[in-house]
Amino acid sequence: MQWGQDGNSFIVYVEKNEKIMDSITQFCVNKQIHNGFISGIGAIKSVELGAFDIDNKTYIRKHIDAHLELTSFQGNITLKDGKPFIHAHITVGDHEMKIMGGHLFEATVAAVGEFSLEQRTFDASRKLNEDVGLPCICLSETF
Amino acid sequence: MQWGQDGNSFIVYVEKNEKIMDSITQFCVNKQIHNGFISGIGAIKSVELGAFDIDNKTYIRKHIDAHLELTSFQGNITLKDGKPFIHAHITVGDHEMKIMGGHLFEATVAAVGEFSLEQRTFDASRKLNEDVGLPCICLSETF
Amino acid sequence: MQWGQDGNSFIVYVEKNEKIMDSITQFCVNKQIHNGFISGIGAIKSVELGAFDIDNKTYIRKHIDAHLELTSFQGNITLKDGKPFIHAHITVGDHEMKIMGGHLFEATVAAVGEFSLEQRTFDASRKLNEDVGLPCICLSETF
Repeated sequence: MQWGQDGNSFIVYVEKNEKIMDSITQFCVNKQIHNGFISGIGAIKSVELGAFDIDNKTYIRKHIDAHLELTSFQGNITLKDGKPFIHAHITVGDHEMKIMGGHLFEATVAAVGEFSLEQRTFDASRKLNEDVGLPCICLSETF
Repeated sequence: MQWGQDGNSFIVYVEKNEKIMDSITQFCVNKQIHNGFISGIGAIKSVELGAFDIDNKTYIRKHIDAHLELTSFQGNITLKDGKPFIHAHITVGDHEMKIMGGHLFEATVAAVGEFSLEQRTFDASRKLNEDVGLPCICLSETF
Repeated sequence: MQWGQDGNSFIVYVEKNEKIMDSITQFCVNKQIHNGFISGIGAIKSVELGAFDIDNKTYIRKHIDAHLELTSFQGNITLKDGKPFIHAHITVGDHEMKIMGGHLFEATVAAVGEFSLEQRTFDASRKLNEDVGLPCICLSETF
């Protein structure tokens, strides 16, 4: 991984054969980035996608081995059990430009992974919400 | 809705059964956020999508009731008739990870809605552009 | 093109019949924006998409003439051969809300093109990486 910093803004280049979620999470741990937003593009492989089955409170999973364009990555960083946790959704395109997507468990960079990471100082942490069935963001302000 | 602030940057958590466009628009009205950018992810339902038919200057509409992953949300905040107005496009994924998308009229949070809102002080407002058939952004600088 | 500025953040409105990649690249040249991030939405036509064939180190290309919703645009600005270079991926939706996407070579605005451009002062430039087969980002920090 290569990176650059401008104040609270980072460019993160996840290199070929590195795992995206693992690499960026380790980067957040190392840099003590507890809250923030991530977006990005690239070309990836070995993608583990999910779709949350709300009725059964479990993720339906799908593994895709092919080389895919990472057409969109959007996510956020919050604290879960005191550690930086990335929640991200992606869309990916195949060689016919057809798109799939969902919750991202993990993916490996096939060519490049180019990300924007904006560090923020919120008080966002996650706790299991039993009604939703997911660790949900908790913030001190409500509206 | 829960929220947190770091300078001109907000994290906005739209909770289960809240409407996304209505909730964030009301938040902008309350916080006097007139210009900015929004992105986000989540799991939604009761989605009203649109595709602009340029020849007929009307939106083709499609309503989807199913539970869907909100794989991408990108939008901006400008003033329209003096009030904060959100223009957003989304992509959504079903339980087979297939993706649909378009202009977002409204959607309800099915599990979570997690958004980044970056407030900006531009002079962006919208006026009907009769050639385009839409309320288009007006800015004082041209290039 | 119309634009507005708030510090290192720009709103860029690419108008009907203007080319997106060409217009924003020229804007970056003019404003001496060497590094940054871009996202956006709109309605476009005459779209030249790509998917990188990693084995053959070439782009598979697809041209779409139809009017399409620009449902997602994510990209970055780096220096390539000393000049601002935009690398962007998009997803687009047709009138049935079906989505395609990939690497964006060029597209023309059919109705509106509304972009966020965040200028950053990294040291990100691109050099051909022969293993990957693409001009890859080079940064001074590694992790």
